[in-house]
Amino acid sequence: MVRNIKLLLSYDGTAYHGFQLQENALTIQELVEGAIKKVTKEFARVTPAGRTDTGVHAWGQVVNFTSTSSIPLERLPKALNSCLPEDIIIREAEEVPPDFNARRSAKTKLYRYTLDCGQYPNVFYNRFAWHPIYKLDPDAILQAGQHLLGRHDFTSFRAAGSLVKTSIRSLKRLEWDFSQHPLWHLYLEADGFLYKMARAIVGTLVEVGRGRLAAADVAKIRDGRDRCLAGPTAPAKGLTLWQVRY
Amino acid sequence: MVRNIKLLLSYDGTAYHGFQLQENALTIQELVEGAIKKVTKEFARVTPAGRTDTGVHAWGQVVNFTSTSSIPLERLPKALNSCLPEDIIIREAEEVPPDFNARRSAKTKLYRYTLDCGQYPNVFYNRFAWHPIYKLDPDAILQAGQHLLGRHDFTSFRAAGSLVKTSIRSLKRLEWDFSQHPLWHLYLEADGFLYKMARAIVGTLVEVGRGRLAAADVAKIRDGRDRCLAGPTAPAKGLTLWQVRY
Repeated sequence: MVRNIKLLLSYDGTAYHGFQLQENALTIQELVEGAIKKVTKEFARVTPAGRTDTGVHAWGQVVNFTSTSSIPLERLPKALNSCLPEDIIIREAEEVPPDFNARRSAKTKLYRYTLDCGQYPNVFYNRFAWHPIYKLDPDAILQAGQHLLGRHDFTSFRAAGSLVKTSIRSLKRLEWDFSQHPLWHLYLEADGFLYKMARAIVGTLVEVGRGRLAAADVAKIRDGRDRCLAGPTAPAKGLTLWQVRY
Repeated sequence: MVRNIKLLLSYDGTAYHGFQLQENALTIQELVEGAIKKVTKEFARVTPAGRTDTGVHAWGQVVNFTSTSSIPLERLPKALNSCLPEDIIIREAEEVPPDFNARRSAKTKLYRYTLDCGQYPNVFYNRFAWHPIYKLDPDAILQAGQHLLGRHDFTSFRAAGSLVKTSIRSLKRLEWDFSQHPLWHLYLEADGFLYKMARAIVGTLVEVGRGRLAAADVAKIRDGRDRCLAGPTAPAKGLTLWQVRY
């Protein structure tokens, strides 16, 4: 019997060249597929909800794959973890309907970006937060973000090299959590993200926070549909694929 | 003019063979003294509040050293950090009286030990928490700890290889914080810690938590004054020198 299996996994992306298989670089996909092969004795191709870039982390990445293995699914996470390095952890395994596809079935993806706004970087968040060297104004950042919420053409926040046809996306949530100050967490949820879109948004909001752009400029940047108008791409290490909703 | 300078520093100890200088291994002391030499052009010997072991971290380590450098102290942290790797951060520098000694002047030291009691390890805490493979009973652990509070001979929780004369110490605080469950933080504060004492206490409390020892056994272990009676030494990676009080 062929089962369609969904895995929930976390990883510290620091050591990897992103999720997707690459010829000459170590990726998370290669290690997860290798672990599945060791445990099930079958080759499997995993489909991820999101192809995280080099250095990007995941708390709740989702993948699916098909298998004829009869291993009880409650035992699968532990079995796979024993074949994986410590910075990749399978947290759940469940059987899903045959038509479930981790990427196409996703309704929204939620990313978290962490800024470390302390005077000096927090060593315990060194791998998971960006420490901008400028002092940031939280009010300006909050105001600027409002211009991006909703359904827009996000061409200005899309890196070159993407092949998708439309750059219209619905940003359903753009929410800052300052409760762990000096760590500032930004939650971004959308029906889809263009290539490096989350990091382009963060880079632009930080330009506003440091006073190089006004909050209102963000609306002009959005409407200009030109990547050159927006701020730089924020570093990968602050970004975490937080949750995928189905 | 010779100034006695106190530094407050944090480090991720994962990559280091502890604080104290060693002939053939990289230590935090070597890097801090190297940074001071680069910035002040003077050789300095730093005295730490506590010599953390291989793999142990610090949030609030304190060191002092003397220097004739006239660099303004508000500029010193940034200057030193530019000569240090990302996993060591100088957070404050201040001038202290000539008789201040980071180790001898310390009234108490506070350590934090972090257990990750989730079903699977949290990848973001992988470097800073121990994930015991057993399920732990928090009530038993809480009860057991009470037998260690106060002034006791801690010989049963002292690793071989220590040269200090007395093994009597005052454990002033033994407090669990379960608010970030499944991360359990234990705060241990004492006028001094014997060699590997904090980790021996944690290892013993975990034995109680998993049911291999009863909470009341901890009083017997304490009074037995024999290291063989207590539990194993908990892994270094969960331990952080949190704060030093003067």
